[in-house]
Amino acid sequence: MIDPLDLTRRLIACPSVTPADAGAMAVIAATLESIGFTVHRFAAGEAPDGPVENLFAIRGQGGPHFAFAGHSDVVPPGDGWTTDPFVPEVRGELLYGRGAVDMKGAIAAFIAAAARLEGHPGTISLIITGDEEGPATFGTVALMDWMKARGLCPDFCLVGEPTSTHRLGDMVKIGRRGSVNMWIEHAGTQGHVAYPHLAANPIPPLVRALDALAALHLDDGNAWFQPSNLEITTVDVGNAATNVIPAVARARLNIRFNDEHRGADLVELVRRTVAEHAPAATLRAVISGESFITPPGDFSALISTAIKKVTGLTPELSTTGGTSDARFLSKLCPVVEFGLCNATMHKLDEAVAIPDLHALADIYEEIVRVALAH
Amino acid sequence: MIDPLDLTRRLIACPSVTPADAGAMAVIAATLESIGFTVHRFAAGEAPDGPVENLFAIRGQGGPHFAFAGHSDVVPPGDGWTTDPFVPEVRGELLYGRGAVDMKGAIAAFIAAAARLEGHPGTISLIITGDEEGPATFGTVALMDWMKARGLCPDFCLVGEPTSTHRLGDMVKIGRRGSVNMWIEHAGTQGHVAYPHLAANPIPPLVRALDALAALHLDDGNAWFQPSNLEITTVDVGNAATNVIPAVARARLNIRFNDEHRGADLVELVRRTVAEHAPAATLRAVISGESFITPPGDFSALISTAIKKVTGLTPELSTTGGTSDARFLSKLCPVVEFGLCNATMHKLDEAVAIPDLHALADIYEEIVRVALAH
Repeated sequence: MIDPLDLTRRLIACPSVTPADAGAMAVIAATLESIGFTVHRFAAGEAPDGPVENLFAIRGQGGPHFAFAGHSDVVPPGDGWTTDPFVPEVRGELLYGRGAVDMKGAIAAFIAAAARLEGHPGTISLIITGDEEGPATFGTVALMDWMKARGLCPDFCLVGEPTSTHRLGDMVKIGRRGSVNMWIEHAGTQGHVAYPHLAANPIPPLVRALDALAALHLDDGNAWFQPSNLEITTVDVGNAATNVIPAVARARLNIRFNDEHRGADLVELVRRTVAEHAPAATLRAVISGESFITPPGDFSALISTAIKKVTGLTPELSTTGGTSDARFLSKLCPVVEFGLCNATMHKLDEAVAIPDLHALADIYEEIVRVALAH
Repeated sequence: MIDPLDLTRRLIACPSVTPADAGAMAVIAATLESIGFTVHRFAAGEAPDGPVENLFAIRGQGGPHFAFAGHSDVVPPGDGWTTDPFVPEVRGELLYGRGAVDMKGAIAAFIAAAARLEGHPGTISLIITGDEEGPATFGTVALMDWMKARGLCPDFCLVGEPTSTHRLGDMVKIGRRGSVNMWIEHAGTQGHVAYPHLAANPIPPLVRALDALAALHLDDGNAWFQPSNLEITTVDVGNAATNVIPAVARARLNIRFNDEHRGADLVELVRRTVAEHAPAATLRAVISGESFITPPGDFSALISTAIKKVTGLTPELSTTGGTSDARFLSKLCPVVEFGLCNATMHKLDEAVAIPDLHALADIYEEIVRVALAH
């Protein structure tokens, strides 16, 4: 028996702020080995986005192959906690500490569930990276390469991100929007405001382009996704002098997009729109992830049934929120995300309700039991 | 006899970067007293825009009253001079040093001209401030208050700003455009780009308003003025996070306007335009100066004739360029600006051609002689 509360506490005690590991992977590895998993660990990548600690653990033989996926790293605690963020502290029904819900608690629940499933048919694996909260360049992607090289591909994957909102079990994510950031720069010719004919102000073409971008209608959303959305996230000139026409103006935007678009097509749309209004502007784009969807079906039904059995709730199947490593894993097999309540994730005084930790282990156990019995 | 070269050197040696005086006023006062002027000096204002050293000097009795106006302060030298900016150095025909053309050389020429006019009819005065290059709050304005309190009002005023461009005498300024700066701020609601419905991005309304402002047509110019011109001088959000919708967006603009507008009317036009596109924006305006014009007439003709007599050139009567203290003095009497070549003003290695210093003293002498003979 593995107590998910005890294991969560031990993981919180490792200050594994990305990219630090701080002993978290060793705790996970030792615990998994104690319940019969074969554990592979490797570091991937080089500075600045690496090296990253990764772990792949496997138990059982043949199909079906069920994978839990998650991350041992946490976001920085920030100032203002009422407890030490890396000293787990129980107050009443709550366990406080950075990573309690995102997602050391879920990793503990993975392992507690697996511990109760000894002798299962098929294969259970855990895909755990030390860099989900950072650049994620050498984390889950490197683990997928590692698995591919060994012919390992799960049939189902459950990512333990904290998807619940008000109560454990009220929301499951069956997809995520994609995300792309774009940087727009417009050069001009600096000069004195009193001699505008000797200068070329880069701001008017840039604001014209931004106005056109803000007015773009990307789509109306669909059955599973809210409408795609473009936000201009900053505009910066940084000209301190009231009598100077600046030399350059810069802006940045982010698009969260549903499965009606590919990132590259949106980049092209922005490029075309900007070119129309500010032909001299230059653009740079970074696609953080494409959108993905695991359409409602057997896997999500199985998860909903397990949640209902333990909590009495029927989860909403959602595609809202930010990105997660599920965007990578969705290339392998059906992926659903389900985990703890996210109210305190990335915030001060992150905390998990201890009964939720136990219930989550119960739900995970039920999900895997049913999935492997197929 | 006062040698304008020698006096310019002595003034350059005082590092009177606004608001410092560094002994410059004492040099001016002593020299003026040596040629029969009564000199009044006073400091005006308090921090942050003061105190400012001011000087009013007067010689003669009754009308006509001819005033020279100028400033003893200079802009900071900046790095990269080939000489020490406050150690006057003659190389060939050039005298190097900060303030050589803007406008210690012109002050020296004022005084050299006045020295030759002893026994003149009417009155000659010098209105010299130590803050023309700074906020100018307690400089010429305070001098005008001081004069008003004593019933002193010139009939003509010549400001010694460096108005010549390629050759001494090629340009006289008979007016200047006005200038107004405006700050626009638009508040929104900060949030995560993945949850736009929980946030309100201030950038789209701001860029829409800026686009409308950039498209405003103010006028076509007129016989004496180029068209009024609006420049957006900066836009700043300063949001470092790619996944955050910012809380506030800010912009600033400057309008240089001719005599078809009053500053307040342009502020109202901007306010109306912004309100149409970004009703939640707040605005702040500072009118640095109204436009003014001394229409071509006796005074400018007299100056042109004197310039032609000394240099052979017929000056262009212009209203181009930045603002000067002439914007204040124009409330008293006809004001014309004429001085040295401005190619090196506010630049590294500011320098004056020594023959120009002597020619300028000759021109000033001729102007005053004719003006006081009227």
